[in-house]
Amino acid sequence: MTSPTPPPLDPPHRVLLGPGPSDVPSRVLLAMAAPTIGHLDPAYLRVMDDVRALLRQVFRTENELTVAMPGTGSSGMETCVANLIEPGDEMIVCVNGVFGTRMTDVAGRCGARVHVVEAPWGETFEPDALAKALAGHPKTKVVGIVHAETSTGAHQPLVEISRLVHDAGALLLVDAVTSLGGVELDVDGWRIDACYSGTQKCLSCPPGLAPVTFSPAAFDVVRNRETKVQSWYLDLSMIAQYWGESRVYHHTAPINMSYALYEALRIVVEEGLEARQARHLLNHRALRAGLEALGLSYIPSRSLPNLNAVHVPDGVDDAIVRKRLLQEHGIEIGAGLGPFKGKAWRIGLMGASSTRRNVTAVLAALETIMGDLGAPLDRGAALAAAGRAYRTEAQ
Amino acid sequence: MTSPTPPPLDPPHRVLLGPGPSDVPSRVLLAMAAPTIGHLDPAYLRVMDDVRALLRQVFRTENELTVAMPGTGSSGMETCVANLIEPGDEMIVCVNGVFGTRMTDVAGRCGARVHVVEAPWGETFEPDALAKALAGHPKTKVVGIVHAETSTGAHQPLVEISRLVHDAGALLLVDAVTSLGGVELDVDGWRIDACYSGTQKCLSCPPGLAPVTFSPAAFDVVRNRETKVQSWYLDLSMIAQYWGESRVYHHTAPINMSYALYEALRIVVEEGLEARQARHLLNHRALRAGLEALGLSYIPSRSLPNLNAVHVPDGVDDAIVRKRLLQEHGIEIGAGLGPFKGKAWRIGLMGASSTRRNVTAVLAALETIMGDLGAPLDRGAALAAAGRAYRTEAQ
Repeated sequence: MTSPTPPPLDPPHRVLLGPGPSDVPSRVLLAMAAPTIGHLDPAYLRVMDDVRALLRQVFRTENELTVAMPGTGSSGMETCVANLIEPGDEMIVCVNGVFGTRMTDVAGRCGARVHVVEAPWGETFEPDALAKALAGHPKTKVVGIVHAETSTGAHQPLVEISRLVHDAGALLLVDAVTSLGGVELDVDGWRIDACYSGTQKCLSCPPGLAPVTFSPAAFDVVRNRETKVQSWYLDLSMIAQYWGESRVYHHTAPINMSYALYEALRIVVEEGLEARQARHLLNHRALRAGLEALGLSYIPSRSLPNLNAVHVPDGVDDAIVRKRLLQEHGIEIGAGLGPFKGKAWRIGLMGASSTRRNVTAVLAALETIMGDLGAPLDRGAALAAAGRAYRTEAQ
Repeated sequence: MTSPTPPPLDPPHRVLLGPGPSDVPSRVLLAMAAPTIGHLDPAYLRVMDDVRALLRQVFRTENELTVAMPGTGSSGMETCVANLIEPGDEMIVCVNGVFGTRMTDVAGRCGARVHVVEAPWGETFEPDALAKALAGHPKTKVVGIVHAETSTGAHQPLVEISRLVHDAGALLLVDAVTSLGGVELDVDGWRIDACYSGTQKCLSCPPGLAPVTFSPAAFDVVRNRETKVQSWYLDLSMIAQYWGESRVYHHTAPINMSYALYEALRIVVEEGLEARQARHLLNHRALRAGLEALGLSYIPSRSLPNLNAVHVPDGVDDAIVRKRLLQEHGIEIGAGLGPFKGKAWRIGLMGASSTRRNVTAVLAALETIMGDLGAPLDRGAALAAAGRAYRTEAQ
């Protein structure tokens, strides 16, 4: 071996205010560094059981089939679609951004006959549009929709959607990658049949696992399939056995990632879901007041509190601002995707990243950089507006 | 939230001498606890580039398409099969244990017309058997074979197999989950077209990523497919773009797992592949001498140095011995699988677990427990035999 070895790892300390990953608390990082043990060690099986119990609390469900899939959030999407769909099944997918679009791609690869309901990027779906689609496709088996569209910041109401889907005899599949642990999500109360998330958004755990939960009805669909799930790796009929009492070996679980998720979920439950949602909302309102005082306007009409997508002002170079934020201030925010490429910033306040310090830091940095670039600004207005928002909330 | 939160994480310190995971060095655990940064951060992209360069050294390849897939070892198997196979393609799979069997399952789910070549569990394949199968199935596109069969400890020679596969115009797909970094593996020299591994075996990194490399010919097959890869999550045509110059977002990479792999690969390269193989061989010879002195016989005729599968002696309860090893000595070894369930022990000496201390510890503990259980034993013979093996090697 004559090639030089690369230097010791030395990643910079960033403030992660993009669309995920979010800042990871030291408690979670340290938990991840606990000694690796075997995937069938009784001590590890207890960790799995506790992770499942914690996930049920955070998803607000009693679903037996609740697991952390051994892949990132997108593997959760594929898990849900691949396990529910058999070739030729009909599926409606609601598309208003990158992740709805991705779901159509995944569904097509699984052999679904896909019917797309579209809304403009940044908008959410009104029940009428879905009702019409369900009437037009009465054999629909699954309706897929994104609760928190990470590409636009749109926050989709689900209660009425769920009623329509179940009245039509279909299953409701929800992408909660960016919502779980940050905004209200009630899997049982809203009768969601299959729900997936990621660890690196409002749970503030590193990326690498995909929490997934299936209702009894959805689990029955998996158990009564006529064909094998096309993915061996994501086949829940086998993975449920590893997470269940029989503990049949399927894959070697990502042990240390499970440690991290365990600790991240403990933090969520210690804070409490309602207090956590209130914190996300508080910091969102202050950030929004500040961004609007900087002259930035929100893209979605119903914005997520944890992901703030705003239009890049005319004449301002998107990439230069993001680069200076990262290089001069150590702050990461997200770029626009698809039709918003170069035209949007996505500012996440997720999990541990949702703090007053970070709201102040990103507003101050944006004001400094945009001012340097000659954007017309009312200096000081953003921080003043954010401060007022915090004072109002405190009253 | 009224449910109690589980206690702080406190996994026990084990000595991991099973079929993986292996012991993870502190350097790797600490690297994993470095601050999470974004998956498109320039600092993270450098980590990816370095991981790729290190993987190329360890795989001994110059393959452009060399990546760490965001899943465990089995996702590597599915990645290789799903990307190479289109529905109706013919594939020969060599089956002599759990992982060859699994490959037939994965290939079937991908739509392959699967032809199985079988050898008894514990045995390896002779070129003749494959030559016959290739003659019988001249349209074979891919031949899949396991280099290190983790379920039996069998060590498959590949040079002659590779010649036959290429003479027949097929691609060679090799499972190197348990061999990479522990025994000789020469992807370019042996003309392997697609090779996958795991991180938790001889690389001594926690489980969670699957190193994969594709030869130019195999990459061409991916690029020239008529159908989409059935798995969106594992589609190398997209993942190659994220790892390539265009850096197109596909999934959120498992950042901290990448840190761990980076450090684990640095350790492998610092030691050097040849020195590492020699260490695995030395400790294997000592363990083998000791196990045989305990009256234990090896299952495979060609044993891997890093995975020692032996028959459980008649009259000895497999599960009691493993349970006492774990509870009283903190040592994990593996159980038998399939036809060897209850009839085999699999003792891994992989990566950081391959040390003289561990050889001594497991021999001493086995002698103690088997002696307690009344097995006929020549007390002290195992450690003496292992000691002789070390002295012989040192001469």
